[in-house]
Amino acid sequence: MRRINVALGERSYPIVIGSGILEGIAGLCAEAGFPVRSPLLIVSDSAVAPLYLSELEERLKAGGYTVVSHIIPAGEASKSLTVYEEVMTTAISAGLDRSSAVLALGGGVVGDLAGFVAATYMRGIGFMQIPTTILAHDSSVGGKVAVNHPLAKNMIGAFYQPKMVVYDLNTLLSLPPRQVRSGLAEVLKHGLILDRDFAYWCREHAAELLALDPEALGYALERGCAIKADVVGEDEREHGLRAILNLGHTIGHAVEAVGGYGTFLHGEAISIGMAGSALLAAKLGRSRSLYEETVSLLGALELPTRLPAEYGEEEIIEAMMHDKKFKEGRITFIVPDEIGAVSIVNGVEESAVREVIRQLKEEGSPW
Amino acid sequence: MRRINVALGERSYPIVIGSGILEGIAGLCAEAGFPVRSPLLIVSDSAVAPLYLSELEERLKAGGYTVVSHIIPAGEASKSLTVYEEVMTTAISAGLDRSSAVLALGGGVVGDLAGFVAATYMRGIGFMQIPTTILAHDSSVGGKVAVNHPLAKNMIGAFYQPKMVVYDLNTLLSLPPRQVRSGLAEVLKHGLILDRDFAYWCREHAAELLALDPEALGYALERGCAIKADVVGEDEREHGLRAILNLGHTIGHAVEAVGGYGTFLHGEAISIGMAGSALLAAKLGRSRSLYEETVSLLGALELPTRLPAEYGEEEIIEAMMHDKKFKEGRITFIVPDEIGAVSIVNGVEESAVREVIRQLKEEGSPW
Repeated sequence: MRRINVALGERSYPIVIGSGILEGIAGLCAEAGFPVRSPLLIVSDSAVAPLYLSELEERLKAGGYTVVSHIIPAGEASKSLTVYEEVMTTAISAGLDRSSAVLALGGGVVGDLAGFVAATYMRGIGFMQIPTTILAHDSSVGGKVAVNHPLAKNMIGAFYQPKMVVYDLNTLLSLPPRQVRSGLAEVLKHGLILDRDFAYWCREHAAELLALDPEALGYALERGCAIKADVVGEDEREHGLRAILNLGHTIGHAVEAVGGYGTFLHGEAISIGMAGSALLAAKLGRSRSLYEETVSLLGALELPTRLPAEYGEEEIIEAMMHDKKFKEGRITFIVPDEIGAVSIVNGVEESAVREVIRQLKEEGSPW
Repeated sequence: MRRINVALGERSYPIVIGSGILEGIAGLCAEAGFPVRSPLLIVSDSAVAPLYLSELEERLKAGGYTVVSHIIPAGEASKSLTVYEEVMTTAISAGLDRSSAVLALGGGVVGDLAGFVAATYMRGIGFMQIPTTILAHDSSVGGKVAVNHPLAKNMIGAFYQPKMVVYDLNTLLSLPPRQVRSGLAEVLKHGLILDRDFAYWCREHAAELLALDPEALGYALERGCAIKADVVGEDEREHGLRAILNLGHTIGHAVEAVGGYGTFLHGEAISIGMAGSALLAAKLGRSRSLYEETVSLLGALELPTRLPAEYGEEEIIEAMMHDKKFKEGRITFIVPDEIGAVSIVNGVEESAVREVIRQLKEEGSPW
């Protein structure tokens, strides 16, 4: 079993990673400080619940816990205030008290929604993340929880840390290959930002990672979580440094928005975005070989680095303006300096971003 | 101008009290750290907005701020997720950003709702309380913000501290006398809990307080806020000590629930509740004179200490069970030891509480 400590003073918590560790979930809940006398609420979704929910419930009950479950429809649409209120209704009806906890069994949507419930039920109760996707290694560290408003994503939320993250690698074995690759994009991102050796390690072990080899995957998630935990430990509430975690996200979010959410998976979109950041880096004076290395590392994980021709430059720029806003024709970008190091660059010119978008349609690989 | 510091480490904030201080609101917002480049959102209600909103808006605009206002219907029904989402829509449409702030202009309902918006808009932005009732001196200190769920009051919320509380005594001059008395009940409560001298000071200056004399009222609010701030500073998230602030509230909430909210005002109901706690104290061995003193102090502020005959013992007990829950026929009570000192007493027998309810119908004064 691997353990990482997310160091946030009195809000510190462990991430536990291993194969089959959900068998010991009752003990982990006890370690997290959840008393057996207070009911637990499991939030899961219609895709994950059929696979793992009943085992989880049984193990908790065997450990003496009272458990109630709420299953939401799979997909981003469940991150709404309406579904949030429904989960609250379940929590109140089940008699959750101030010592109770919410367990999020699923990916990012479940984690974000369940975390916001935990953050705001009776002004905050216990919270545990049980991620069942690789992508969620990212969202399960850092304490960002939220629901969407019809006018904007993630607009309603809180910073709220879990008491523990429990990562059972067995729950990843049933992921479709495209989801695996998408998740690995965020893993590699952490290497590209802060850990050159780990970035190259990912390329070297790409075959094992894509095949979900437990040893390789366990190590990759440990490093990915540890790097993110370091950044979050320095800047919990995103006042500055934490922005480096957005490498590839400015272009990536715009690609997702223009394509319609779901055309590209999140990791695929930020893979294209990271290739774009490296192209931008070349314009700002970094070596062109940095772009080539970036594409090679992403390509090893079979991730796309080319923007399809049908994506309009104007639409991408407009989506970017909606997301982060250009200020007087300039925008802030996270730009690689080398593999494993990035800078926050203010005042990038719109014309440079437009050139990058055009180049992204011609270079790289579509996969 | 009077100033009290609520000492909560990096979440510390000042309470500023004085007559006419809203004239300087733009300067106070600057002191609170709200930049002029980010829009401010004022939340007020249909009762308060006609009196003070346009002046507040004008003063802020004169100070260089962009301001948008959202007016909710006066009354507890506005503390709903529906109204919360409407306020969020206003905030997003007005382009509030992470440096923006929400100003709550009104009583407890406005403060609770606006505070929960501030706590959760973009994961938390600035917040200022501008209370316009005496009662709100209590809710504006301590950082409890919340909305109601159809199944239970204040079930959805957070602990979220304002950057500043601005108490303009001029906004209290238009309060109806019954609201004044109700508010003074919470002021006196703080004396009954922790400050004997202040409790007797309230009786001595009852006529001035009831007449809203600025000097007396300013001092009373300063002491009330300071006592509450001390308790909250010791126990921000209500793990223990903070429970003493609930003196009179176990019976008081039940009286409100049985009578229907609005039959008794909150301060009137807790006045009856505080009389009840003193009766309970006598049963637990404290002197009977403690009850008589308590009734005398409450009576000086023209507050009721008798429960009307039509209130059923069974209904009161049932409402209490719903609120706090008896565990195996026992309940926790805040019980006075003397004027200015209380204990948290666990395991009070239901039979003793029933006796108190019967006595409350026979003793004290209805006003």
